[in-house]
Amino acid sequence: VRGWAQADPLPSWNDGEAKRKIIEFVERVTTPGEAGFAPPAERIATFDNDGTLWSEQPAYFQLLFVLDQIRDLAPQHPEWKTKQPFASALKGDMKTVMAGGARSIAPLLAATHTGMTTEEFSRRVGAWIETARHPATGKLYTEMAYQPMLELLAYFRANGFKTFIVSGGGVEFMRVFAERVYGIAPEQIIGTSGKLKFEIREGKPVMVKLPELFFFDDKEAKPVAIQQQIGRRPLAAFGNSDGDLAMLQWTAAGGGERLPVFIRHTDSVREWAYDRQSKIGKLDKGLDEAAASGWLVVSMKDDWKRIFAFEK
Amino acid sequence: VRGWAQADPLPSWNDGEAKRKIIEFVERVTTPGEAGFAPPAERIATFDNDGTLWSEQPAYFQLLFVLDQIRDLAPQHPEWKTKQPFASALKGDMKTVMAGGARSIAPLLAATHTGMTTEEFSRRVGAWIETARHPATGKLYTEMAYQPMLELLAYFRANGFKTFIVSGGGVEFMRVFAERVYGIAPEQIIGTSGKLKFEIREGKPVMVKLPELFFFDDKEAKPVAIQQQIGRRPLAAFGNSDGDLAMLQWTAAGGGERLPVFIRHTDSVREWAYDRQSKIGKLDKGLDEAAASGWLVVSMKDDWKRIFAFEK
Ligand SMILES: [Ca+2]
Ligand SMILES: [Ca+2]
Repeated sequence: VRGWAQADPLPSWNDGEAKRKIIEFVERVTTPGEAGFAPPAERIATFDNDGTLWSEQPAYFQLLFVLDQIRDLAPQHPEWKTKQPFASALKGDMKTVMAGGARSIAPLLAATHTGMTTEEFSRRVGAWIETARHPATGKLYTEMAYQPMLELLAYFRANGFKTFIVSGGGVEFMRVFAERVYGIAPEQIIGTSGKLKFEIREGKPVMVKLPELFFFDDKEAKPVAIQQQIGRRPLAAFGNSDGDLAMLQWTAAGGGERLPVFIRHTDSVREWAYDRQSKIGKLDKGLDEAAASGWLVVSMKDDWKRIFAFEK
Repeated sequence: VRGWAQADPLPSWNDGEAKRKIIEFVERVTTPGEAGFAPPAERIATFDNDGTLWSEQPAYFQLLFVLDQIRDLAPQHPEWKTKQPFASALKGDMKTVMAGGARSIAPLLAATHTGMTTEEFSRRVGAWIETARHPATGKLYTEMAYQPMLELLAYFRANGFKTFIVSGGGVEFMRVFAERVYGIAPEQIIGTSGKLKFEIREGKPVMVKLPELFFFDDKEAKPVAIQQQIGRRPLAAFGNSDGDLAMLQWTAAGGGERLPVFIRHTDSVREWAYDRQSKIGKLDKGLDEAAASGWLVVSMKDDWKRIFAFEK
């Protein structure tokens, strides 16, 4: 295999089937004359974010941002002390908040994600992401990006791929850090989004974040968003949950050389271990289809030499 | 000015204020140390399509595609002979069709743009765009792209800009030819779109075009779409009608070096002349704001040496 003779492009991956299959795929689609050769314009790779590029435990990091924001905004909202779901959120009683499901989380999202301009929201996310610490590791959230995936993103780009995020997370949230952390530009990030309103305030146009959902980028909506916004079928797609299954199916069905991949959380020591029974990042149907279709399933425990850059 | 000493990047533009302002803008944002310097990642330029990159008379070309499709599909729909708006469309009686406005055109759009997979639709557009001829010039529609704008797109890209289309036209329609004609990749095309449905047919995923509108990319929706899909404010934006005014306002308000431009249809001999009173591509409020704000207004008659490549 050509890549092995040169500097290892994936040093945080253990030698084994996963690393070999990934490198063989990249070499096949980039070598002129190979049956699977794809011109650079067609080299599209899509990546889920939470649980695929960075961790998602004990809760999606964007939800932890919401809780931190609620705490920061509480002095301006004395009524929150007695009003649900704010009261529980302020007490850190996530069990009560989560028990109410989406209906319970919606007011928290509205209070922290809407009613402001897109610029103001970006400033808030920027201030948070630079200082907030993960409750279990004490690390910055951006330090909890997976080192093997950062190497893989760079390796794909070095081979002419355009790398896109296609995530259920908020697009305006991810764009604040994705370019710096993942090397993925704002225009290559697809996510869940709320409606925006363009209006002129004191002679100056602003973009206001409205409390209505515009697009929820999960499950079947992922390939739909890929078609709407990219307009080309990916050659490779990486996910970690059943929410990515449709994206991987759409990718695999393109014919020719394709690489649909699930990242499986198997390392309870260095990261977390969960799949079929998990409330966050449930991977159940996806495992069945991967087995039936021969898709690559990466085991974080077995295939990754190092998970985070901060590990020794 | 640096650019003039070298090979002329805009040979189909007459020497004059428009050409000079465009070249000066590009030099200022790309010269390190200049106050307006922008790193490559921020070099975003957005372009309306109809009337800005190609002609839009005597009707939007996509509407002419619709009428040709209705004619092609008529043998499978004998009921259309007596059913409106199909009967008028088949007779070429556009006056009656257009008199009904959007309500009248919707069934024609639905019959030609929905109920099929995205791949089937692309095939149909592809077959049409390769053979259909413009009713006035007899040229292929793709030959009616403006040569000065093709040069400008290439000039911007040669200077590190990413060029995007932001159009009221259908995104799936434009993607069929925009890469070949304009050099603009599918993932850099934003337009009006219908809802899509991902479904598994006989074990194979397909994307079906539904008859419901997803996003109508005109007026205030243009900067909204830019924020949703690009996530960065353009440094330059080109349009030709009031439908582009909000996009140009949003661009201009970014501060620093910005280039909001209207292309004005002033050449009744080589192209068409229309603005404040036109039903297609009405440019009225936009002209007022351009005058008030000192935006560049390009006159096709005065500023373009050649409009179409097929001119001698
Ligand atoms: Ca995930
Ligand atoms: Ca236009």
